[in-house]
Amino acid sequence: MLLGGIDIGGTKIAVGVSDADGGLLASRRVPTADPEGPANALARALLALRECVPEGGQLGAVGVASCGPLDSKTGVILTPPNLPDWHGLPLVQVLEAELGIPVALENDCNAAALGEHRFGAGQGVDDLLYVTLSTGIGSGLILGGRLHRGLRDSAGEIGHQTVDPRGAQCPCGNHGCLELLAGGPAIARRAREALASGRASSLAPDCEAAQVIAAAGEGDPLAHEVWVETLEWLSIGLGNAITTLAPQRVLIGGGVSAAGEDLLFEPLRERLRRRVRLVPVEQVEIMPAANPLDACLIGALAIARGLV
Amino acid sequence: MLLGGIDIGGTKIAVGVSDADGGLLASRRVPTADPEGPANALARALLALRECVPEGGQLGAVGVASCGPLDSKTGVILTPPNLPDWHGLPLVQVLEAELGIPVALENDCNAAALGEHRFGAGQGVDDLLYVTLSTGIGSGLILGGRLHRGLRDSAGEIGHQTVDPRGAQCPCGNHGCLELLAGGPAIARRAREALASGRASSLAPDCEAAQVIAAAGEGDPLAHEVWVETLEWLSIGLGNAITTLAPQRVLIGGGVSAAGEDLLFEPLRERLRRRVRLVPVEQVEIMPAANPLDACLIGALAIARGLV
Repeated sequence: MLLGGIDIGGTKIAVGVSDADGGLLASRRVPTADPEGPANALARALLALRECVPEGGQLGAVGVASCGPLDSKTGVILTPPNLPDWHGLPLVQVLEAELGIPVALENDCNAAALGEHRFGAGQGVDDLLYVTLSTGIGSGLILGGRLHRGLRDSAGEIGHQTVDPRGAQCPCGNHGCLELLAGGPAIARRAREALASGRASSLAPDCEAAQVIAAAGEGDPLAHEVWVETLEWLSIGLGNAITTLAPQRVLIGGGVSAAGEDLLFEPLRERLRRRVRLVPVEQVEIMPAANPLDACLIGALAIARGLV
Repeated sequence: MLLGGIDIGGTKIAVGVSDADGGLLASRRVPTADPEGPANALARALLALRECVPEGGQLGAVGVASCGPLDSKTGVILTPPNLPDWHGLPLVQVLEAELGIPVALENDCNAAALGEHRFGAGQGVDDLLYVTLSTGIGSGLILGGRLHRGLRDSAGEIGHQTVDPRGAQCPCGNHGCLELLAGGPAIARRAREALASGRASSLAPDCEAAQVIAAAGEGDPLAHEVWVETLEWLSIGLGNAITTLAPQRVLIGGGVSAAGEDLLFEPLRERLRRRVRLVPVEQVEIMPAANPLDACLIGALAIARGLV
């Protein structure tokens, strides 16, 4: 039995095929944007998916992870800001008609949490928080061994917690959101602002978050300052989520998680021990996701696994 | 079948007896403090509980709600700061030996959430957040129709979210906790400080939170300012919890919830609509608990109901 997975993001659609254990046999990427519209983008994605199926193999089901908001019950894409052409698309209905096999849809962070729970670093844990640190910050919640979706599949939007009551306005409309202060663009912005003010640094004026993190690891003082501030905001946001959920394990994925043990995990654990006092945070396992960069695609495969 | 409930707080122990539907037949209160120690306090509580049993009636089970930390699995009180003499007490074992009927123990806010879910304003809802606003601020989570306890029964400690990164130190050890900024004592403290600085007001210099709330309702400008600041902190803390959980319903109990619809619920909903943008907060029902002051005792009865 083969499983198909589709991960629809704002810039690319990743597709892949796995065996029943989630082991990825092949994957492809196609751009999301298409002058002919989402129907054409989907057709390209399905072509790429079929190319991933080994000779003589057959897909038993397809799981789809997409940025939200969406409705997992009806399989409809609602109003994702970074999929403007897709609003209202009955995606599951369209794909089932095209493929003739069962299809299911989940919010991308929820899918990633499912994928880590079934195939990754969350196996065997009942209460799991999967966090992605990337351009955006989000999470998926497995509680009591089951995905907690919440209203309109929107549970786990921890990147839009208010962490700074005096903070600037976020594109979401709220002020002082965690994502606005600790997402990849915030890391780059703070470094660029410090550079523009004349501070000495090994960083280039147009540096990106990954370069700031690398420079922090190499001891660049400006980059280190920016990163320490980022860690403080992350410890407030993740600390609040841990204080609310008291999970057994927190898995961190996404591009920023590549900062790794010395730069991210250990200093974050130390800050969380100071902030989280009512939940026994020293018992919470805070560790990297098994698939930090492919978590949503692996999640889509976990969704497919649930259909067969 | 009659059910017994015991709610152990820092200052009083409430006991009560209900029928199987949670309808309270009688209740009593005894002080928690006892020079002879907790065994004696418990003996007084059990005497009061027996006085609540109607002539010829018999208890089938007893539920206990207590401030935590505690271990609901083993039925042991761990290290609650406001029950200093009770640390390590194997409460369920002691009570079962004494009563000869099944006994179970839950964290007080978790019990209250269970009580509202089974007998109160949370009936029929799968994803429910019960919040108590009082001297302390805490919550209990019903998710997927089941109580989410978390590590060491500590899920839902939303009063110890960091809501002010520049805030003062909380007795818990963290800085800028919601409870420190929006609990009853914070309301009284801000009003007293403003009075001490010479501001005109109808309030007395030693006013308590309930008086500040009442004066805010009567249009006292100083009290109104203090209350609006409290609402802002509450909207951050509750907004973060809603953004993380996306529950169907939020029930608010505790003494401060007596502020009611015009002073508390409507202005809170309005602020939450501004802060919570990724969860459809307009679909979240934010309403008073059915038992705002007895929620933990009713919760203890719900626990007993689960045993028979």
